Amino acid sequence: MRIVFSVEYDGSNFCGWQHQPSECSLQDVIQNAIKKFSGQPLKIIASSRTDSGVHASWQIFHFDTDLQREMNSWVRGVNTFLPSTIKVLGAFKVGEDFHARFSAMKRQYNYILYSSKISPCLFFNKVGWTWLEIDENKLKEAIKIFIGQHDFSSFRSSECQSKSPVREMFEVNVDKISESYYVFKFVANSFLHHMIRNIMGSLIYVASGKQPLNWLIDVKNSKDRSMAAPTFSPSGLYLSGVHYDAKWKIPFGNKDFIFNYI
Amino acid sequence: MRIVFSVEYDGSNFCGWQHQPSECSLQDVIQNAIKKFSGQPLKIIASSRTDSGVHASWQIFHFDTDLQREMNSWVRGVNTFLPSTIKVLGAFKVGEDFHARFSAMKRQYNYILYSSKISPCLFFNKVGWTWLEIDENKLKEAIKIFIGQHDFSSFRSSECQSKSPVREMFEVNVDKISESYYVFKFVANSFLHHMIRNIMGSLIYVASGKQPLNWLIDVKNSKDRSMAAPTFSPSGLYLSGVHYDAKWKIPFGNKDFIFNYI
Repeated sequence: MRIVFSVEYDGSNFCGWQHQPSECSLQDVIQNAIKKFSGQPLKIIASSRTDSGVHASWQIFHFDTDLQREMNSWVRGVNTFLPSTIKVLGAFKVGEDFHARFSAMKRQYNYILYSSKISPCLFFNKVGWTWLEIDENKLKEAIKIFIGQHDFSSFRSSECQSKSPVREMFEVNVDKISESYYVFKFVANSFLHHMIRNIMGSLIYVASGKQPLNWLIDVKNSKDRSMAAPTFSPSGLYLSGVHYDAKWKIPFGNKDFIFNYI
Repeated sequence: MRIVFSVEYDGSNFCGWQHQPSECSLQDVIQNAIKKFSGQPLKIIASSRTDSGVHASWQIFHFDTDLQREMNSWVRGVNTFLPSTIKVLGAFKVGEDFHARFSAMKRQYNYILYSSKISPCLFFNKVGWTWLEIDENKLKEAIKIFIGQHDFSSFRSSECQSKSPVREMFEVNVDKISESYYVFKFVANSFLHHMIRNIMGSLIYVASGKQPLNWLIDVKNSKDRSMAAPTFSPSGLYLSGVHYDAKWKIPFGNKDFIFNYI
């Protein structure tokens, strides 16, 4: 039987999603919790492998088990074995042809940028911080160049394992919600390793006036990672939605992610 | 020379505002940071003494010094001696007749309530949690009884040092901002010890159907603390504004407190 879990996590103190020998990853900690609950060995497969320090208001993964339990008993049971920084939100029964990664048609990430002379406090580790002053109009102009199908080689980590650097970006938005807060939304079929953090670094160069918009267009067209700005902080990045075919009946995102309401 | 600081803090790991011999309090840590910056002994006096676990997006305190520095040099300098959980936001020069506590005409607090079967994760320690289901309409009805001048003895800690139990509540609001989040706003001339947390506990009794509205009215009229519900969690409580006479030119609150924008 294949089961899908939706989870929320604070990634600050994990070494990313993917399994590590030291078991410091989200995959390791969650897998061990499910093993404790079910008494069976198993492997979980996620929609997206988030970096160290990146959060999720809505991550999706699947695993196979022959243990029969009510779906809400899975949720409650596994949560008792998890630290306060990870919560299972929902459990869904799916067919064997569902795959959390390969069946995913779109992923959504939010980036919360805090632009202030003073570094963040109440939301330390939950926002990406720049001391540079940001021009909202420049930001709104610059994000447009990422919409559509593009070769994102310039914004791809050298460690990226993807076969193709081409991705289709369905949506990029940014809203200034207060004097210092900017909430970004990125929706694509999938993302390359470090892609959003690399885009964020270069967007901040343009929005702060350090580089003109034409520089960003040149960077994108160069398909050369060394042209772009350094990788920006993971702290403001949240995986916030995964879209599957409606037949799987898996909700798109977490209705309670507060940055959705700002 | 009298100087006023506005500060933001995550109160999770402090034993409240007020000085303790073990120096675990916000007052101790901030006082020590200012001493290190100025090289002078001093005492800071705050608008409000927040409890252990209570946060502030905008706390105000004053102190006296003969050290001459630009106001933004005070901000930057003291911040270098503070942990990431406390930030000075602003510094203002005032006359000797200003007093952070006695000159304050109104205080504003927000309470962030998370009502969900699953306990909080991304905002662990930053929201108050109840697993009870909340009826928004009952909540909106119940909060009305606290508006105006009342004897709040029923919602006052036995350790409260205030001479009078009478307070004037200028405003109480609540907005449901998502499936599980409720944002409360309380504005009064000042608050008794544990007053908002005791009110929150009793409001949740009514909003969850555990007690009828008449019970809450009786509790208030009884002036008897033993009649009310237990003190609710400090985690969702934020001091978010302090109002002074306009002549002091001290802003009312933190424009970047995200719950103001939801």
